[in-house]
Amino acid sequence: MSGASESIPGELMATEVAEQPTVLARILGGSDELAECAARIAAARPRFVLIAARGTSDHAGLYAKYLAEVRMQLPAGLVSPSALTVYRARPDMSDVLFVAVSQSGRSPDLVDSLSAARACGALTLAVTNAIESPLAGAAEIAVDVRAGAERAVAATKSYTAELLTLYLLFAGGAAARDAERLPDAAARTLALASEELLEPLAARFEYAERLVLTARGYSYATAREAALKLMETSYVSAMAFSGADLLHGPMAMIDRSVPVIAITSPGRGGVAMEPVLARLAELGARVLRVGVDGGLPIVADGLPEQLHPILEILPLQRLAWRLALDRGLDPDRPRGLSKITQTR
Amino acid sequence: MSGASESIPGELMATEVAEQPTVLARILGGSDELAECAARIAAARPRFVLIAARGTSDHAGLYAKYLAEVRMQLPAGLVSPSALTVYRARPDMSDVLFVAVSQSGRSPDLVDSLSAARACGALTLAVTNAIESPLAGAAEIAVDVRAGAERAVAATKSYTAELLTLYLLFAGGAAARDAERLPDAAARTLALASEELLEPLAARFEYAERLVLTARGYSYATAREAALKLMETSYVSAMAFSGADLLHGPMAMIDRSVPVIAITSPGRGGVAMEPVLARLAELGARVLRVGVDGGLPIVADGLPEQLHPILEILPLQRLAWRLALDRGLDPDRPRGLSKITQTR
Repeated sequence: MSGASESIPGELMATEVAEQPTVLARILGGSDELAECAARIAAARPRFVLIAARGTSDHAGLYAKYLAEVRMQLPAGLVSPSALTVYRARPDMSDVLFVAVSQSGRSPDLVDSLSAARACGALTLAVTNAIESPLAGAAEIAVDVRAGAERAVAATKSYTAELLTLYLLFAGGAAARDAERLPDAAARTLALASEELLEPLAARFEYAERLVLTARGYSYATAREAALKLMETSYVSAMAFSGADLLHGPMAMIDRSVPVIAITSPGRGGVAMEPVLARLAELGARVLRVGVDGGLPIVADGLPEQLHPILEILPLQRLAWRLALDRGLDPDRPRGLSKITQTR
Repeated sequence: MSGASESIPGELMATEVAEQPTVLARILGGSDELAECAARIAAARPRFVLIAARGTSDHAGLYAKYLAEVRMQLPAGLVSPSALTVYRARPDMSDVLFVAVSQSGRSPDLVDSLSAARACGALTLAVTNAIESPLAGAAEIAVDVRAGAERAVAATKSYTAELLTLYLLFAGGAAARDAERLPDAAARTLALASEELLEPLAARFEYAERLVLTARGYSYATAREAALKLMETSYVSAMAFSGADLLHGPMAMIDRSVPVIAITSPGRGGVAMEPVLARLAELGARVLRVGVDGGLPIVADGLPEQLHPILEILPLQRLAWRLALDRGLDPDRPRGLSKITQTR
């Protein structure tokens, strides 16, 4: 750790955000290895997928859940680590693929959950940015997301690296070919999220104490992860809801004083958002759209809908970073947090 | 619907909150029928439990997930209805118990999800307050939670009715006997949540625009449901986090200006909250505890930890109601919401 490079507020986060096209290209360069892991998983013929993660990685887990359900055609759920750790449940997990996702691989409750799942008969897969970590050591299959050392407390490149790695593991045969244009699309999406674009948006949100983010399908992970970035770096109360859940109650909270960020992919998730956007318009809500043609645009370049979350989060990471700096905060050093969280 | 009885703001919600001890006793009176349903489920020998719900019922589903994992010793997950509806996934669901929870039984995406799960081979269970509803009609096993007609938009008695019904279905043999004292404990808990207790608390939160709620284990459902009540009735940005997830990021957002409500049961979930409470104390956060000996107390009366969520939500429902009235709002008629939410 060089003290000098850490002296400019937000420099670490900005650097790591900018590295993402390179990281994505590096992961695609190793897609043969991931295809081998995918073949090992397929050979075990799992019937169910359970996913455990915390924080940012939990949002990668949410993305993986949709992939497992839609692309692997397997029932999938997010587990509560506490069922296995705090309450010591020991279910029969034969035929289960148990996936733990963690940047550091060092969260004790995830290591304990994965070990318990393995003892209960699950095939265990660790997806981590630290291949020498206890989590990787505890799993039968350990995959390195190759993001490189991540130093900012707010995870950015490890998140998109987890998404692409999970996509290559779970999306099936032609997945790597479909993703070939992703690094370039990511670079072009970041180029669109310029200071000129971000400044007026950040200014608009400068005094917002709360924000609502919403999406459906694969992009729901984007809404959740963007909310966490905004909370971590700008201390704004950013709440993410699936478009469907937003209509069940939280919509009451929304008026012109609560800005809304809606992630609208051009695929089925985006179509399912149309009634949500219509209802928001009826309420006079102020909505910033993220996506192709959005106020925060992405370059989708014909990539399939399930790859869009890897692009959508990029301008939102930049927005969180810009907003923190504008509020006089250092996004590299959120108060009260450390890079590795120890929970049991 | 009599116009007269609806003319006092919050009267419907207050009446339905107060009915809960009676509803709980009514459900226990039908526990033999629920035991028969539980026996039918056990005879099918499911290996996995998937739960689909929206809004308040989603929190009952979260509670049921812990019961399935800890008491039935089955891997369990919350599904995204959109995987089955928007993306038309058709996984092999033999050996799956698919549970849909819905007060109205009329949310189209839940009916479609349950029907898809049944077509994919799952054993389907509908838990609803409307036994004549399309959801109940679509399921192989349909259970009435017997809350009686619920007229306030903010669900209260149907929530605790769903919890107790799911407990009796999933918690195993002695469950009904363990729950015998519940109606009395609920009545005594509501008596403690008096106007004298609530007034100063509501005054303290009167100008709070945001609130954080946190818990672990079974009580995490309480945190989520209380947050929704506060959003629906008082339009406050109430955010719920599991204690473990709070440490992974959102903790940065907390300072003395963000009040925290922590639900701390005396069981394993409560023990797991201790490091979270310690961290909040270090940060100087203002914490209101809900639970035995809490600032918002419950009468636990020796009931097992997994029944506490049915008690914990009661003073929080009253607090949400009081806060809405103090803000000049009608908790019976949240803006922008209707009782049955149509999502696909």
